[in-house]
Amino acid sequence: MKYLALAFMAISASGLAAAIGPGDRDKPQTTADVLKSAKAEDWRRPDPANTLYMELPSGRVIIELAPRFAPLHVANIKALVGEKYFDGLAMIRAQDNYVVQWGDPDEKRATENSKRQLAMESVIPWGKGLPLVKLPDPDTYAPETGWIDGFPAGVERKPSGQAWMTHCYGMVGVGRGNPPDSGSGSELYAIIGQAPRHLDRNIVTVGRVLQGMELLSPLPRGPGAMGFYEKPKQRMPIKSIRLASSVPIAERTAIEVLRTDTPLFARYVESRRNRREDWFLVPAGHIDVCNVNIPVRDVPAAKP
Amino acid sequence: MKYLALAFMAISASGLAAAIGPGDRDKPQTTADVLKSAKAEDWRRPDPANTLYMELPSGRVIIELAPRFAPLHVANIKALVGEKYFDGLAMIRAQDNYVVQWGDPDEKRATENSKRQLAMESVIPWGKGLPLVKLPDPDTYAPETGWIDGFPAGVERKPSGQAWMTHCYGMVGVGRGNPPDSGSGSELYAIIGQAPRHLDRNIVTVGRVLQGMELLSPLPRGPGAMGFYEKPKQRMPIKSIRLASSVPIAERTAIEVLRTDTPLFARYVESRRNRREDWFLVPAGHIDVCNVNIPVRDVPAAKP
Repeated sequence: MKYLALAFMAISASGLAAAIGPGDRDKPQTTADVLKSAKAEDWRRPDPANTLYMELPSGRVIIELAPRFAPLHVANIKALVGEKYFDGLAMIRAQDNYVVQWGDPDEKRATENSKRQLAMESVIPWGKGLPLVKLPDPDTYAPETGWIDGFPAGVERKPSGQAWMTHCYGMVGVGRGNPPDSGSGSELYAIIGQAPRHLDRNIVTVGRVLQGMELLSPLPRGPGAMGFYEKPKQRMPIKSIRLASSVPIAERTAIEVLRTDTPLFARYVESRRNRREDWFLVPAGHIDVCNVNIPVRDVPAAKP
Repeated sequence: MKYLALAFMAISASGLAAAIGPGDRDKPQTTADVLKSAKAEDWRRPDPANTLYMELPSGRVIIELAPRFAPLHVANIKALVGEKYFDGLAMIRAQDNYVVQWGDPDEKRATENSKRQLAMESVIPWGKGLPLVKLPDPDTYAPETGWIDGFPAGVERKPSGQAWMTHCYGMVGVGRGNPPDSGSGSELYAIIGQAPRHLDRNIVTVGRVLQGMELLSPLPRGPGAMGFYEKPKQRMPIKSIRLASSVPIAERTAIEVLRTDTPLFARYVESRRNRREDWFLVPAGHIDVCNVNIPVRDVPAAKP
């Protein structure tokens, strides 16, 4: 068989703030070389208190929340999940090359302690404390891009002084109506196509799918406007959404995510900017932040 | 329901070489405004002699070929299609956030007059005759981007003097092995995820899916390495691939594609660079060439 190209690992990536760039070309390595040389400390275990398990009939989707970027929304999603708000709800929308979205198709389910409206959290202030791992390449949308806390991010130091998570494949955000404060986390979406970066700074992102995108991205596209499903039987049900920390240890999925704040990650990114596998003829010399898939791996389960 | 954002039309886009840019901000228009004002001459009918119909059990996928960019490969694909080479073959691969690929899973089917190896056609020479409709925004991968013949394109005037089609969502290319000349068009792929622009200039692109991406992108991801299917029953069969010009007029799909070489297209692109719909709070100010979906519409069928 002809391989279109070497594999993108079915995974997602994490580096050191400065070392990504031409300097690394002195010791060219393939991605496989780089990952093979990774040490235990180059990987991290996502915090179970910020990890969601969405259980679908087809399996488990694992989402890592990003409290730094949207503290109110992350807290509210945890409250919703604590109330079992999502259990029995459904995937309500799949729009090709755009998003899948889930929540209450009837918009009737009551909540207990969680909120139904929250202040906008689409950006956070840029400040020296923000641990940006910077990508040196030009970006169409943001003056600077890179990773913060392992999530892809855009930064505009001036004039706005803002940072935000970039809308890449697999990012999870909060559906809202026209009013900026009309979202709460009771409807969530995941990006399944070309990064819709025009959404950056327009809507609240809360995290990223670490595992299970292949359960979401092949959902049949909805026949209605914007990919909404029109009949109940078209909607894949959600069995439950739980915080990993509330699930017995034996039932958790043991995974590790490549750290983005290590020298190894810088080498990883360089191996994606300039592909050295035999198949490639012309190295690209650059990479879009949304084309750096951050590796996630299965690891032996923790002992309960 | 909360709308994540206004619709991306389930379609794809086409403008005037210079008019895209800040100048148009004087008369801000939404995309709906722009398309509403389109005249008959802002649309084009794809040439049936360069249009493929791939018939799947789920429906018809329509692909427009780009002979300027890959004349040998386009001619060879037409020869293969003329031999009914693809009839009864199958989708052989679906890799999440990357590609679906089709061809002969057994690599045994004989060909008649078509070739099995062709010289590389991953770039064409940049020259003054090339009708580039230029996008003014910075791109991570190419010095210049825009559209040529209605297809998204990258250009490097110096030092290489090259132009090529960019690997955007829905683009169709030719699978190959490691040798650059090992592709022929007997295995084709379509992009179903984030634009893998590192493939630009590394592989031959031959066209773009105009209609039917929603039949390809939700294929179940293959369980094997790189998304290959492992068992025959996992593979969606291809009923046939035909050149539209060889199909009776009454059986053709009457569609039009928005031209990319008109003032209207420039306004269309501007409406995507800076979204004026009420939902948006912050216009992006820029757009990636792969985020400009070129509208395709159904039209009344031609009379046979």
